[in-house]
Amino acid sequence: MKSSVTFKVADLCAALSIPVPDGLGEKIIHGVGTLESATGEEVAFVSKVKYQKEAASSAAAVILTPIDFPGTDERFLPVNNVMESLLTIITMFHPTPKPESFVHSTASVAEDAELGENVFVGPGVVIEGGVRIGANTRIESGTFLGEDTSIGESCWISPNVTILEKTVIGNRVRIHPGTVIGADGFRYELISGRLRKIPQVGNVVIEDDVEIGANCTIDRAFLEETRVGARTKMDNSVHIAHNVQIGSDCILVAQVGIAGSTKVGRGVMIGGGAGLKDHITVGDGARIAGRSAIQGNVAPGAQVVGTPAIDVKSYARFSTFYRNFGDIWPRLRVMLAEFEKNRSRD
Amino acid sequence: MKSSVTFKVADLCAALSIPVPDGLGEKIIHGVGTLESATGEEVAFVSKVKYQKEAASSAAAVILTPIDFPGTDERFLPVNNVMESLLTIITMFHPTPKPESFVHSTASVAEDAELGENVFVGPGVVIEGGVRIGANTRIESGTFLGEDTSIGESCWISPNVTILEKTVIGNRVRIHPGTVIGADGFRYELISGRLRKIPQVGNVVIEDDVEIGANCTIDRAFLEETRVGARTKMDNSVHIAHNVQIGSDCILVAQVGIAGSTKVGRGVMIGGGAGLKDHITVGDGARIAGRSAIQGNVAPGAQVVGTPAIDVKSYARFSTFYRNFGDIWPRLRVMLAEFEKNRSRD
Amino acid sequence: MKSSVTFKVADLCAALSIPVPDGLGEKIIHGVGTLESATGEEVAFVSKVKYQKEAASSAAAVILTPIDFPGTDERFLPVNNVMESLLTIITMFHPTPKPESFVHSTASVAEDAELGENVFVGPGVVIEGGVRIGANTRIESGTFLGEDTSIGESCWISPNVTILEKTVIGNRVRIHPGTVIGADGFRYELISGRLRKIPQVGNVVIEDDVEIGANCTIDRAFLEETRVGARTKMDNSVHIAHNVQIGSDCILVAQVGIAGSTKVGRGVMIGGGAGLKDHITVGDGARIAGRSAIQGNVAPGAQVVGTPAIDVKSYARFSTFYRNFGDIWPRLRVMLAEFEKNRSRD
Repeated sequence: MKSSVTFKVADLCAALSIPVPDGLGEKIIHGVGTLESATGEEVAFVSKVKYQKEAASSAAAVILTPIDFPGTDERFLPVNNVMESLLTIITMFHPTPKPESFVHSTASVAEDAELGENVFVGPGVVIEGGVRIGANTRIESGTFLGEDTSIGESCWISPNVTILEKTVIGNRVRIHPGTVIGADGFRYELISGRLRKIPQVGNVVIEDDVEIGANCTIDRAFLEETRVGARTKMDNSVHIAHNVQIGSDCILVAQVGIAGSTKVGRGVMIGGGAGLKDHITVGDGARIAGRSAIQGNVAPGAQVVGTPAIDVKSYARFSTFYRNFGDIWPRLRVMLAEFEKNRSRD
Repeated sequence: MKSSVTFKVADLCAALSIPVPDGLGEKIIHGVGTLESATGEEVAFVSKVKYQKEAASSAAAVILTPIDFPGTDERFLPVNNVMESLLTIITMFHPTPKPESFVHSTASVAEDAELGENVFVGPGVVIEGGVRIGANTRIESGTFLGEDTSIGESCWISPNVTILEKTVIGNRVRIHPGTVIGADGFRYELISGRLRKIPQVGNVVIEDDVEIGANCTIDRAFLEETRVGARTKMDNSVHIAHNVQIGSDCILVAQVGIAGSTKVGRGVMIGGGAGLKDHITVGDGARIAGRSAIQGNVAPGAQVVGTPAIDVKSYARFSTFYRNFGDIWPRLRVMLAEFEKNRSRD
Repeated sequence: MKSSVTFKVADLCAALSIPVPDGLGEKIIHGVGTLESATGEEVAFVSKVKYQKEAASSAAAVILTPIDFPGTDERFLPVNNVMESLLTIITMFHPTPKPESFVHSTASVAEDAELGENVFVGPGVVIEGGVRIGANTRIESGTFLGEDTSIGESCWISPNVTILEKTVIGNRVRIHPGTVIGADGFRYELISGRLRKIPQVGNVVIEDDVEIGANCTIDRAFLEETRVGARTKMDNSVHIAHNVQIGSDCILVAQVGIAGSTKVGRGVMIGGGAGLKDHITVGDGARIAGRSAIQGNVAPGAQVVGTPAIDVKSYARFSTFYRNFGDIWPRLRVMLAEFEKNRSRD
């Protein structure tokens, strides 16, 4: 993908603290690509030896490789950690927006809102009373921050996000468009024969370095708090119900749903579309496969899959039976028929 | 959760029409909490005897209890119905916004739109021609109301909601952020070898006292109406397709999807993530478990679960087999092998 | 559904190039309905002979029928293709908005954005630098177009849509409210023991004549592009991850999720709520049933269903076993018990 900035190969090598390949230092590079997509003006990368052939035939100007990558190609840039070097290069070509102190004329900012240094407030943003925003944070167009919301430093809130009252967001949090944080939890009680809404007057707390995808929903707690732990990453359209507690360093893939008051430990991975029942506990380091339905507690470190979810080994056995059912069932049926015929004869 | 208002214990007792406990009447209360979370300046509550110990050790200033709750604690406030009293107290500490007559300067309101008394229109709201809004309704920032939409009295529409043309919404309806009502139903027909879009020119009708969660989608009908019955409650990210009819008093948990023209009766409960096929009927009072796939009609009062959904008793049997498959299958396999060996010998 | 315009029956017949029925030419028609819903001032339609009775008893003023529809009713309007004629009539009563050159005073349009002829820009729209918009395109209120986005001719982008930088959208594309295009793909790598976000600097390309439902999310690619092929139609709340390639003429029903780098061929149908694993290939013309979990490649033309998905015939057999498990299992258990008793006796 072509960038709007360019660098010489020598610039890239300097940034990576590696030697400049002979005769290529002055070459102008326009962006980063894959072995397949990179043009002669782009840098590509390769990690695995099995892509040796693709590396050789790539049109890329230069190619990041592991130190011990086989073959001799003057375009190779051997580095200690390809992915880390790639991050450095991508960030040079595609820097995140620089902090800037700016409030668009169409934004509505309450008089008592406190904005730190270099806060960007885009067009149409609404910031209600009592809101506090830390330094270097970016609030993009159309986003709503309800009363007494607190947002830390160096956050980046995308367009058309809705963050409702009393939400607390840490530092370096990234929230993608369309996400809703702090809507009412879903609880009704039958009181004297009538279903009554139970007011949801708790809040949502998002810890440092969390990333939340597009069109997610994270509901406020009944009385206390719904919490997402530090460094946890959430893909798009994830639903987190009221009073849920998610530990640090978790990965939640798209379309996951977690019902009320469930506790998810640290370092848990939950595959896309999986659903977790309310009031259960998922232990640290557990791995839940995509599209699984979790109907009870999951032990620390457990790996579960299925609807309802069971451990991966049991599931593998069942899955073999299920996939081969067309062969197995006629055999079982023959046996059953003969057994029952003999029995009725007795 | 600390509130911005305070009451004396005597005020709370007066609101509940109960006697003031000796010596506590002047104590200042700052909010409501759980037995676990409440501080010495908050009121807590307990319903079940099994939490007797937690009640005794709670730091709460006062505690709502059932009349016959065991133990003698001067902080206990015995009431006829704990949940009902709790609702009263929570509402004192966290009142819903008072109706106010207000149109923000950045809102775009069509000249012929009719706004009732005490209608609140937030920043950036767009109200198109022919829209009617009843008294005491609140339309929050960034929300869009398309042509000829009608919204009843005492509704509360959250920020960044999109309600498209001709939608009809009753009284006391609550809609959470990011929800889209009245987008086109999804229908294409192969006409002369080409897939053609079938225009969706019906509308959506939401009856009184409905609550709709965040990021839901309710599509307009082809020619007639998509309808959500009175007092039905919908959690987040629920999808309702065109021409669906949902009865009154239903509960739809998060991420439910209902396909086109399906009819759901009264008082139906649908668990999170369940999917209903198009053109089927779900009878009154049916209960559909979370993550189930409904592929045919469901009888009134039926309880179904699974993918595809079957009645709960059959499912429980299958589920036992599935969960114990790792033990059962080796035994079945031994029997099958011996049967087939004997047979081939004959 | 009553329209705001009216036509005489003679006008409708002229538009369809069919003879005017005796004595009905001057009748005023107010809209289109079904056999059941149409009033005496509306036109209805019937395609199938089995609805002959409903047609006879319909209150409709006139009724579109196939040429050879049985019965003689002066209200019948026989046509070659009922659905095609119906499209013509619906479009007369409910025309799409006419292109108009308009930029609302509350929109924020970058100076260097290029707007074609007759582009409509609604209230609160944000158009960033370098954006190009083709002629006759409509951008509705609250929608955000990020830097260097390109949108073709005759597109219709609904309210509160977010389209992020560098997205490329073809001609005649329709996007419904709340949809987010171009948010970051979801990828983290463990580098030196720390989970690092991999910047997503590719883009999204939407080809001509695509329709995208409400509250969908289509993520930008890592380095290259996420692509949705021409004429593909997407229902609400569909999630498309980074680097996914979707062919032309596909149908994706609501709540489908497709994980990263998966390739979907042409003319593929994916039922509601189905989930596709990352890095797999679905062949042209494949059909995936609703709520299925696709864990591997799907062959061209294959029909698959289930969790995990298998071919429809195998699934039908398993499904019969599963649905009748309550009858089958006790018989299997008796046989197994007897077998094991005899065995232990040996």
